[in-house]
Amino acid sequence: MDRRSFLRTSALGGTAAAASTLATPSLSQNKRTLTMVTSWPRGFAVLDDAASYFEQAVNTMSDGELTIEKKAPGELVGALEVFDAVSSGQADLYHSADYYYIGQHPAYAYFTAVPFGATGQELTNWYLHGGGHELHNELGEIFNLKSFLAGNSGSQSGGWFRKEINSAEDLNGLKFRMPGLGGKVLGKLGASVQNIPGGELYQALSSGALDGLEWVGPFADERAGFQEVAKVYYTAGFHEPGSGLSAGMNLDVYNSLTPSQQSIIANAAMATTHYNLSQTLANNGAALARLQQQGVKTLQFSDDVWDSFGAASKEVMDENMDDPLFAKVRESFETSLASSASWIQKSDGYYVAQRTRVLGG
Amino acid sequence: MDRRSFLRTSALGGTAAAASTLATPSLSQNKRTLTMVTSWPRGFAVLDDAASYFEQAVNTMSDGELTIEKKAPGELVGALEVFDAVSSGQADLYHSADYYYIGQHPAYAYFTAVPFGATGQELTNWYLHGGGHELHNELGEIFNLKSFLAGNSGSQSGGWFRKEINSAEDLNGLKFRMPGLGGKVLGKLGASVQNIPGGELYQALSSGALDGLEWVGPFADERAGFQEVAKVYYTAGFHEPGSGLSAGMNLDVYNSLTPSQQSIIANAAMATTHYNLSQTLANNGAALARLQQQGVKTLQFSDDVWDSFGAASKEVMDENMDDPLFAKVRESFETSLASSASWIQKSDGYYVAQRTRVLGG
Repeated sequence: MDRRSFLRTSALGGTAAAASTLATPSLSQNKRTLTMVTSWPRGFAVLDDAASYFEQAVNTMSDGELTIEKKAPGELVGALEVFDAVSSGQADLYHSADYYYIGQHPAYAYFTAVPFGATGQELTNWYLHGGGHELHNELGEIFNLKSFLAGNSGSQSGGWFRKEINSAEDLNGLKFRMPGLGGKVLGKLGASVQNIPGGELYQALSSGALDGLEWVGPFADERAGFQEVAKVYYTAGFHEPGSGLSAGMNLDVYNSLTPSQQSIIANAAMATTHYNLSQTLANNGAALARLQQQGVKTLQFSDDVWDSFGAASKEVMDENMDDPLFAKVRESFETSLASSASWIQKSDGYYVAQRTRVLGG
Repeated sequence: MDRRSFLRTSALGGTAAAASTLATPSLSQNKRTLTMVTSWPRGFAVLDDAASYFEQAVNTMSDGELTIEKKAPGELVGALEVFDAVSSGQADLYHSADYYYIGQHPAYAYFTAVPFGATGQELTNWYLHGGGHELHNELGEIFNLKSFLAGNSGSQSGGWFRKEINSAEDLNGLKFRMPGLGGKVLGKLGASVQNIPGGELYQALSSGALDGLEWVGPFADERAGFQEVAKVYYTAGFHEPGSGLSAGMNLDVYNSLTPSQQSIIANAAMATTHYNLSQTLANNGAALARLQQQGVKTLQFSDDVWDSFGAASKEVMDENMDDPLFAKVRESFETSLASSASWIQKSDGYYVAQRTRVLGG
């Protein structure tokens, strides 16, 4: 028995065990347990919240037909091994952030966040109405995956530092955690960039293995406790203006679901993003105030630093353009973003500026 | 038999008829048809799109257990009679915009949009994470309703005029369509304000019964054809910065659903908002360009006009403060909005400004 067959059989064993508890034997053939591996330690704010919302929505809506069993990192595979586990059939689906898998394909960056890319809303505009979801699945076919955005952390903060960053030179030599293409940008600016799973970051920052890190935003970062070991916090960042989280399902497993079950997965994913983005935006303001009360100094990067981020980002994006699928995804994303951003500036942007001016907010 | 009993029986008759077509008799007892009355003519962009998305999501996810049958205005009741029809049990649920029902209770304004209120995202932040949904249901209990936001049109445009509005005096005497508290604000400025259903607006503007109107935004307005009869279009408006659409269900009907069915309704509503807000934001930019190609002049109101909107809006909001539930909803809404808006300015707002500056967008 090869590894894939063994693991499939093992998963079916889990289904049979769940089915044996049924009160209505005639329906038991329709009951399935799906193993969902995640990149998030249990209870991690925002990220595990999204995975939990998705799990519960599917389980409740399917009325026992589908039972997603969520596994934290280490329970079946490691935090950043979930993509390969689902691709190979070792697990049924994952909840993660697809930019962790730019090693598998660089275009996965677009389904979480890219430097100077889309806000959470702009990402959704592209994904649902600009061809993004179709491209996510085109990419997924290479890896035997059916993909959904299922969560969004909102605009991610510039991150935690032990000292102020007054010019791009201050980034040179810093041991910093930043995944995805954003990390490659900081690498261009001389940082020593590492992609460490969220569950290991507090320890790495405490021990000095890292000089700084970005994680999510005030609400999630406060829960992770970074304010205990670093005191300088940059609010807006260039690297992840609205990070999508993904539910990636093994394509064979997805194709074996009924149309109703497939619709439950798709709508649960959409409801999760709706729930999750608003969760962070509703809670970040109060969390930031609490961080400040704990002695954290909150700053914005200067225009000069943003200019350095911009120049390095252009280099990084252009480096991947020899891959035709990366180029196709990039073109689709940038076309949608230009249209979205232009309209939002004329509507929400103009409105909010007037509201602030008129109400003196 | 009183009207309510008659109509309930009639609705049950519909369920029985649907059940008789089932191939699996043992499950037929679980199959239900729900009559959903709407305020939107069939095919009306954005609004009927939201109602249709919600209908299809529920029907598909419930795998035939629930069948929502959508009724356009006039098929069972008129466009603005849907609230009373569901409250009384004549229909099972409605899809509409709750600010049409400020006559029933002024606090319903907050569940669509209020002058100088929340953008689409800010509304969701309050609704899901700031107590909004709970207040929606507290209000609903007065009318025997269980309420969900199920759609959002995004920031609504200032509207269509036959001539430019260069000062607040230019609004004096205008016959203008604007529902909700925004309409009351224009009334303070001397406009003759009417609340006419969407399906009747084109005719009213063509005939001169109206001098101007606001409807939704470029994508929906273009489909309605207003560019054929008015040529001045204001992009941002004060009145509806992100209008929520509602699915209101008769409370007895809701309570008779299984937990799984209730979860399907709740998550379908959330997925609908996610789908719908991004639909308008993704499509408005291109629609605005097409309107301009058809000779429409697009403008923004001047600061002076915005100041007049602001002063009149404060008057209108304060007039309703003798109602304790209005005051309670307002306080909850404004507390959430202040926190949301402040954070979004520091994160998305600062980011977008830097992106525009750095990329020269």
